[in-house]
Amino acid sequence: MDDDTPAFQDLYPEPWSHCYGCGPLNDHGLRVRSRWDGQGTVAVFRPEPHHIAFRGIVYGGLIAAVIDCHSTGSAAAARHRANGGADDQGPYPRFVTGRLAIDYLRPTPLDDVMTLRSTIDAIEGRKVTVSTNLHSGGNVTATGRAVLIEVPDGWESAAEAPPAR
Amino acid sequence: MDDDTPAFQDLYPEPWSHCYGCGPLNDHGLRVRSRWDGQGTVAVFRPEPHHIAFRGIVYGGLIAAVIDCHSTGSAAAARHRANGGADDQGPYPRFVTGRLAIDYLRPTPLDDVMTLRSTIDAIEGRKVTVSTNLHSGGNVTATGRAVLIEVPDGWESAAEAPPAR
Repeated sequence: MDDDTPAFQDLYPEPWSHCYGCGPLNDHGLRVRSRWDGQGTVAVFRPEPHHIAFRGIVYGGLIAAVIDCHSTGSAAAARHRANGGADDQGPYPRFVTGRLAIDYLRPTPLDDVMTLRSTIDAIEGRKVTVSTNLHSGGNVTATGRAVLIEVPDGWESAAEAPPAR
Repeated sequence: MDDDTPAFQDLYPEPWSHCYGCGPLNDHGLRVRSRWDGQGTVAVFRPEPHHIAFRGIVYGGLIAAVIDCHSTGSAAAARHRANGGADDQGPYPRFVTGRLAIDYLRPTPLDDVMTLRSTIDAIEGRKVTVSTNLHSGGNVTATGRAVLIEVPDGWESAAEAPPAR
């Protein structure tokens, strides 16, 4: 991992850069940033105090959201690399989530960074499967498994215009 | 469903009322509110424009977060009812998520309300299983299945003090 390299999310096409979870252009969002670490991927995220579930513990929805966006980014990077693209040269293809399953193993502390480490389990046609371990406070506190589906070219232009930011 | 009745989340003990997803006392949060509808439960949530994934579509993490918090509330209400408690009289027991699985069936529009309708599949000791259909734009756009675990009495007092709000 090299923080000087662009994150996967920096290499999305502009119309895909507004996502609350990971879009660099969403002023309100979480801005998850993901990078390669060898054959796996990694993202580091610091929760805000208001991301609380109850005393000192991160609420589960944030964990799901961050794993979801890191997984879609990881799928895009893996597909791009498998296509022969250079890691630092976009645009990356864009993926949506078909299925997301999270196991909450123990409380995730609110006062530590969350480090997400993922493996690319399979690339099968338009489908990529990604598994993630969330590390925090010296433990794996949650695991995720996501099935991501590549969006066909031109699909977004059939959708509505983005709202004013 | 009667909007004059308190929501499940209104009947949580105060130390459990700060959750970003559903806590009435979290000034930044989503404030999911859930109620009985016969033997099932329902919550209605209107996404904000910044909850975008891309053009006109809700980002998946919000869907996971709202289903998660509605499921924990539904588990609490079901356990309370099974214990013989009156629906409108707290405090409710409090649950955390053990497992959350979301299937994203089609895009969820950003400009419509999301209506979550859940069934209580099983109450087994401290474990409650809840299935949810998310309706929006005339379709079921996502489904969720959650396994919720009841928190033992006193567990929260062993955790850290809440951060300043």
